Amino acid sequence: MSSPAGDAGQLRRLIREIPDFPRPGIGFKDITPLMADPAALREAVRQLADYARPLRVDCVVAAEARGFLLGPALAIELGAGFVLARKPGKLPHETVSAEYTLEYGEARLEMHSDPTQHGRRVLVHDDLLATGGTARALCELVEQLGGEVAGCGFLVELAFLGGRERLAPYPAHALLSYES
Amino acid sequence: MSSPAGDAGQLRRLIREIPDFPRPGIGFKDITPLMADPAALREAVRQLADYARPLRVDCVVAAEARGFLLGPALAIELGAGFVLARKPGKLPHETVSAEYTLEYGEARLEMHSDPTQHGRRVLVHDDLLATGGTARALCELVEQLGGEVAGCGFLVELAFLGGRERLAPYPAHALLSYES
Repeated sequence: MSSPAGDAGQLRRLIREIPDFPRPGIGFKDITPLMADPAALREAVRQLADYARPLRVDCVVAAEARGFLLGPALAIELGAGFVLARKPGKLPHETVSAEYTLEYGEARLEMHSDPTQHGRRVLVHDDLLATGGTARALCELVEQLGGEVAGCGFLVELAFLGGRERLAPYPAHALLSYES
Repeated sequence: MSSPAGDAGQLRRLIREIPDFPRPGIGFKDITPLMADPAALREAVRQLADYARPLRVDCVVAAEARGFLLGPALAIELGAGFVLARKPGKLPHETVSAEYTLEYGEARLEMHSDPTQHGRRVLVHDDLLATGGTARALCELVEQLGGEVAGCGFLVELAFLGGRERLAPYPAHALLSYES
């Protein structure tokens, strides 16, 4: 058995840094090598579940597309359901929506508002915590539907972008934090 | 224990038909109630894995966004890795690409071509088999990278659209088939 720190090191080695993507000066954290590695994929979900299990959530909420990669597997590991947040016009039933700020302009996420989609205690998930805009919009959607955000769990955090501070007072946890 | 048919019936009851979405005359199969139900979510992945386990794949490939919902959880259940197919410009490393036909015009999917992403025996997955265009593009991408498509597994099949025939000779399996 390796230590938790060793486990995190194993995952970190499978995050590939791509310089200057999508724009010059940005170092993109590419999780595709981790996703393609059977042991690392399983381990990432296990570690996210270890964080979330004490929160006793009944539902995991995440946004397309990359939040869908680990959100449902995490929900299964927790014995919870999974609720989709999508870009406008993609969900076919009645929705609630929340705006969030991108680098240039605004974007919007929608969630179904029917009773099948109401979590009481909810884990917000994304693969990446950057500036926190997406996660904050997810928290707002959960609360619009009467749910409580028990916590936010991420695979990767870009700590230098201050997303954790912007998410407060919602508690955030990331498996892998980067300082640059 | 319920029978396999009973299990499929349980899942089917959680697929919501939305008339006239996204256009008049189309009956949309909404899987969000199934995704939000902890037991059904787990059961869907278990049944997809029951189909795929004898295929002994080392990797599951699926396209954004809805293929990401069950693909990675299915990979974990199979002890396999997960490889992402995305819309053009989303993947940061070198890619291969394949075109497919939509109702109006063409679309394109990309997959990373570096060695971390090469499956030898691959399961192609999507939540929905409609006309088969997306799945067929995924099969082409797998073969461009030297992999073998061992099978294609879907949650829902719209059998009246002939996707299974268009996918042949790739073998296809769906948990829930609809005749209209």
